[in-house]
Amino acid sequence: MKKAVVLLSGGLDSATTLYIARKRGYSCFCLIFDYGQRHRKEITSARALAKRTSSRYEIIKLRLPEEASALTSRRIPIPQKRSLKTIGKNIPPTYVPARNIVFLGIALSYAESLGAKKIFIGANALDFSGYPDCRPRFFSAFSKAARTGTKAGKSIRIETPLLNKTKSSIIRAGTRLGVPYNLTWSCYRGKRKPCGTCDSCLLREKGFAGAGMKDPLL
Amino acid sequence: MKKAVVLLSGGLDSATTLYIARKRGYSCFCLIFDYGQRHRKEITSARALAKRTSSRYEIIKLRLPEEASALTSRRIPIPQKRSLKTIGKNIPPTYVPARNIVFLGIALSYAESLGAKKIFIGANALDFSGYPDCRPRFFSAFSKAARTGTKAGKSIRIETPLLNKTKSSIIRAGTRLGVPYNLTWSCYRGKRKPCGTCDSCLLREKGFAGAGMKDPLL
Repeated sequence: MKKAVVLLSGGLDSATTLYIARKRGYSCFCLIFDYGQRHRKEITSARALAKRTSSRYEIIKLRLPEEASALTSRRIPIPQKRSLKTIGKNIPPTYVPARNIVFLGIALSYAESLGAKKIFIGANALDFSGYPDCRPRFFSAFSKAARTGTKAGKSIRIETPLLNKTKSSIIRAGTRLGVPYNLTWSCYRGKRKPCGTCDSCLLREKGFAGAGMKDPLL
Repeated sequence: MKKAVVLLSGGLDSATTLYIARKRGYSCFCLIFDYGQRHRKEITSARALAKRTSSRYEIIKLRLPEEASALTSRRIPIPQKRSLKTIGKNIPPTYVPARNIVFLGIALSYAESLGAKKIFIGANALDFSGYPDCRPRFFSAFSKAARTGTKAGKSIRIETPLLNKTKSSIIRAGTRLGVPYNLTWSCYRGKRKPCGTCDSCLLREKGFAGAGMKDPLL
């Protein structure tokens, strides 16, 4: 069976991506990163999704610098109740320096080692927080670095099936594939219930509303 | 004082690079990677070099896949007594999948976080083992990925001062800068003395011979 490495954060985008990769016939090896996030709830979600799909997974513990992001430092407040028109227009304090470069680098290392030909990442550049490492031109540049810097070269491709989709079309597609959205976690805060005010909650809310569905977490 | 992140492996190239960065006036933050190498001797060397130069350093523990490289798996033999004409012509089993992509990604994350404008890496594409992630076209592609995928963008540059130098010219330059080569470790094996037969020992031997100097480790 053909193999793929899937970056699994536990959010709804990466969960949908995992189901897309499976639908395309890949046996998925999930990488889950424990990089010092404020909360471990997303790691729990990611693990549950890997288990639900009987996928192999590895939790990668990695020390990234803490002080530069609201997602890794409690001293930096998470923006709240921003207008949907504002979200995505600039880089917010929840940006984690070079996160996707690091995650994709490690995914490449696993892909080469496992003989996987694809790396799936659920990045989205439409209904997103404005992170530079989620934009098409970054993936194109990174893919070239991957081709020139690895033994596998051109034989490993980075797949970004959600890159230009709206959140509601992602949710509709995922629902058709049977993604258990009740197992996903999007909120930047790790409380018992989603906060409903961070960018991630707002984008999720917009997505479920646009899809005409109820968020199973609410 | 202007800041730089330096990738420090404990070998002679990265040691020389650290001294070059200091000579250029940078306050250096050294990243030392504990990624499951066969031996910890190079980590000890790297730490000693950071301490000798009173540089801040961080040892990054990271789980990379083991089974794909002779440097991380004892089941894969380290090539020995290869001809100097052969070394560098193809990718040997000591290649660690995507290693420099991972290391540079983490270095970028630290550089953005610390406000460092430079990342120094002692890669060499002349007297080297043939790794794809040590070649000029890789660094050029990776630099573009870094520019497009980070908040810092163009303001962080990757410096490869040794890229096109011979091993002997590196050693001569390092000697002028006072690099304590007795503290460095190049051998792929982690015995008491360098094995003298792995690619790394052979390249080091050629370098000291070419520079007309005696290797302080021998």
